[in-house]
Amino acid sequence: MTYCVAMRLEAGLLFASDSRTNAGIDHISTFRKMTVFEAPGERLLVLLNSGNLATTQSVISLLRQRLGHDGPNLMNVASMYDAASLLGSTIREVMARDSTGHATLDQGVDYGGSFLIGGQIRSEVTRLFQVYPQGNFIEASEDTPYFQIGEAKYGKPIIDRVLHYRTPLAEAAKCTLISFDSTVRSNLSVGLPIDMLIYRTDSFAPAVPHRIGEDDPYFHQLSRGWGEGLRQVFGGLPDADWFD
Amino acid sequence: MTYCVAMRLEAGLLFASDSRTNAGIDHISTFRKMTVFEAPGERLLVLLNSGNLATTQSVISLLRQRLGHDGPNLMNVASMYDAASLLGSTIREVMARDSTGHATLDQGVDYGGSFLIGGQIRSEVTRLFQVYPQGNFIEASEDTPYFQIGEAKYGKPIIDRVLHYRTPLAEAAKCTLISFDSTVRSNLSVGLPIDMLIYRTDSFAPAVPHRIGEDDPYFHQLSRGWGEGLRQVFGGLPDADWFD
Repeated sequence: MTYCVAMRLEAGLLFASDSRTNAGIDHISTFRKMTVFEAPGERLLVLLNSGNLATTQSVISLLRQRLGHDGPNLMNVASMYDAASLLGSTIREVMARDSTGHATLDQGVDYGGSFLIGGQIRSEVTRLFQVYPQGNFIEASEDTPYFQIGEAKYGKPIIDRVLHYRTPLAEAAKCTLISFDSTVRSNLSVGLPIDMLIYRTDSFAPAVPHRIGEDDPYFHQLSRGWGEGLRQVFGGLPDADWFD
Repeated sequence: MTYCVAMRLEAGLLFASDSRTNAGIDHISTFRKMTVFEAPGERLLVLLNSGNLATTQSVISLLRQRLGHDGPNLMNVASMYDAASLLGSTIREVMARDSTGHATLDQGVDYGGSFLIGGQIRSEVTRLFQVYPQGNFIEASEDTPYFQIGEAKYGKPIIDRVLHYRTPLAEAAKCTLISFDSTVRSNLSVGLPIDMLIYRTDSFAPAVPHRIGEDDPYFHQLSRGWGEGLRQVFGGLPDADWFD
């Protein structure tokens, strides 16, 4: 499984995924579940993926392969909306090719892949979309400033409690790491290291992801401090008076 | 959806489900997702259910209907193991009758129902089982003292952090209510009131479930205290030093 979170806040964008380095090809770099398309000064697009690996790998391979071609691609689309739409149609293309639609052949395999795509293209504000396995998509707003894909539920309560559109990026990063800590503790299929990429609104700066592993002193400090703090709050709350 | 938790601790058993009162027939009482079979002084069995309502209602109706008959039933089985096994075979019986196994007729309907069944029968210790939609089952142990069914993930991290086999019942109840609070906040399909039943080991006392609604002062106090405490712990944790 996978756990990915992306946030679109006033100060910028934050992307995080459980992952391990894979490869890096010129202006495209891939971490295990994070793919970055960038032209510093002009555009930055970050994709996070979860779900069927054959589907998501094919989608990313096709998006990459078409960068050099004349047709629409992630480096020439005029808006983030067009980028999400292109990602959606590429998902449909792969599903149409790979998913047979016959129960016997599919044998209960779930071919679906989910994506988060966010970034900024010059002349636009930052934008963030969640693209469903069906290829349609929704956009984050000030009211709903974050999306999750994969094993999302364990780590959702803490985000719901502290995150809002005006949360500073450093606090959002702290919240995200605690959300990952809760997920990793409750679900063995999500593991460290975490890849985290933070983009400041209108900076068009090169993407510099952070890699956060088990031995990362900050993550360790958060994980321990959060656990101790929770147990302290829990211990300080009263027992029920209906309890004899 | 549903959220149910059951715990088997040294001091006793705890059962909780999101629910609303339904009916009560002599020695069997039903809350929305909790059914109690009891003969005070001799046995107490508590069932929690989630999943397809047609399936789970049929299973419970059959278990009830057979109480008066000569064959094995929940009021005459000799052990909790036999009770779990009877519940499993009743699930299989209903599934064999209702689920057609034909994709066209089933139209993607999930007929599956999950159960937790726990209690104590005189001559035995307390026992707790999770029965799968396939009718097979697993038993709780000192290492794994609790089970959840339904919308389990939002409320799992808090239980994982504070619960162990020797947790006192009052603390387990507090932990359960906080787990429900986290679930209700993150998922609109789980709602109050909560039915909670606590059974002290070897008491064979009559079951007296508590009904905890939105206006319950203790739940309100926990919910507010927990939320404020979390935000305080969060605020007290440092930002990353790699954050400029």
